[in-house]
Amino acid sequence: MKLIQRHRSFKGYQEVYNHLSNVNNCDMQFAVYQPDNFLNAPVLYFLSGITCTEQNFIQKSGFQKFASEHEIAVVVSDTSPRGKNIANVDDYKLGFGAGFYLNATEKPWSKNYNMYDYITKELPELVANKFEFNKSRIGIFGHSMGGGGAIQCALKNDLYKSISAFSPICSLHKADFAKLAINNYLNNNLEQLNLYDPITVMKKTKKKFADIKIDVGLNDEFLDDLFIDDFQAICNKVGQKLYLNKHQGYDHGYYFIQSFMKDHIEYHSSILKN
Amino acid sequence: MKLIQRHRSFKGYQEVYNHLSNVNNCDMQFAVYQPDNFLNAPVLYFLSGITCTEQNFIQKSGFQKFASEHEIAVVVSDTSPRGKNIANVDDYKLGFGAGFYLNATEKPWSKNYNMYDYITKELPELVANKFEFNKSRIGIFGHSMGGGGAIQCALKNDLYKSISAFSPICSLHKADFAKLAINNYLNNNLEQLNLYDPITVMKKTKKKFADIKIDVGLNDEFLDDLFIDDFQAICNKVGQKLYLNKHQGYDHGYYFIQSFMKDHIEYHSSILKN
Repeated sequence: MKLIQRHRSFKGYQEVYNHLSNVNNCDMQFAVYQPDNFLNAPVLYFLSGITCTEQNFIQKSGFQKFASEHEIAVVVSDTSPRGKNIANVDDYKLGFGAGFYLNATEKPWSKNYNMYDYITKELPELVANKFEFNKSRIGIFGHSMGGGGAIQCALKNDLYKSISAFSPICSLHKADFAKLAINNYLNNNLEQLNLYDPITVMKKTKKKFADIKIDVGLNDEFLDDLFIDDFQAICNKVGQKLYLNKHQGYDHGYYFIQSFMKDHIEYHSSILKN
Repeated sequence: MKLIQRHRSFKGYQEVYNHLSNVNNCDMQFAVYQPDNFLNAPVLYFLSGITCTEQNFIQKSGFQKFASEHEIAVVVSDTSPRGKNIANVDDYKLGFGAGFYLNATEKPWSKNYNMYDYITKELPELVANKFEFNKSRIGIFGHSMGGGGAIQCALKNDLYKSISAFSPICSLHKADFAKLAINNYLNNNLEQLNLYDPITVMKKTKKKFADIKIDVGLNDEFLDDLFIDDFQAICNKVGQKLYLNKHQGYDHGYYFIQSFMKDHIEYHSSILKN
């Protein structure tokens, strides 16, 4: 594991590491914000949206101010494997930047596109071994494809104690974003697809959170493709409390994320430090 | 003048405009953050460093949160003319992204590289005509090349009531960054160069500010090329009060700027709203 970036940021350091991933069979990069008081700090994982690397969130979201104030470590992964010998196509909805936080079952994708295992197993183990953060006060949040990813990962793994999302893609069955990936990675196998579909997972899970926080902009250019109201309906049905906030005027991008970052970090802090 | 981007950001809008610049003889882009309560709002100009467009600052500095809270409009220009028929060379220290906030005297640069007149005359007039911000509560700040630019512009123009800088290049005579530009734009004419050299301008100006705020990181990879201590010595000599803060660990980039953005906006707000 190799440190490739380190910048003083507020009262902490923004770092980026490169390592060989066993589950993805390639080098991966991830970012870590370490508050100065990192010993036993809670850890918050952020999953980004389609096309993003770890850089988008650490450069544009402004999270460091609040992670510093609340003394929370933040880990930001890439959204897919990348590299010379990795399967890819020239479409932003498949391949590099579009891992969808699932394990591909179909060749050639299955060799490297195992982001679900990477996010929920390999990366947390690596972080637990390398850093002196708290091993159980762990939360997860994300945006768009990563918002949906954070929800399905959180509902299936006891690792996570808090969950929130910005503008999550809640239905892999219905979202146009996901069609190409589901076809290629999973050969449209419904049983496989249901493992990663936030709405289906919410329907079937026995795990409940005290609450889930979702923010979305009403000027979001992809609003009709997120199926957040369907997700809310399922939450109501299964008795999962949901704080869903719809914000007039905000769109899908980082200006929206930045505007509500303070709320999300405070939300996770209040749960993880309890 | 054409609106080309508009995003809801905190309690305001982050906008970008394109217009035909008469002094630069080409299309220019600039960004404006408009707080919701924009009527009669103070205006703060930000000048970016070498290579930047208006996008770096608006995407990476996190200023919008504080401009929103203090209800200050923020205008961010490009750092040079750009375009197909504009003189340029393949060196980041000359041409596109390296306008140095001066008026070039030498061909071919003199046709388009008139950033001093653009920043201090054309852009403020355009903003005054187009927006309903306050016409006299105006401040200026910047980073690196733009920090030096903000200082020399502020000292020579009564337009500006407040001035601050992150890691400013204080000596065009000595800084390695500036040598190529000064040679090409001004043919090393000392009289011309002194018009834009922060240290020389401070030596000669009759205008004083109640104070000037400068922040710099002690881990700045270009620290020796900024000549901030020389600038401090001149300030002391001519009786200009300077708040110079040197910060252990921080470098030259946006993680540093972001960490102290709140202080700078509060600083300008306290002067401009007085």
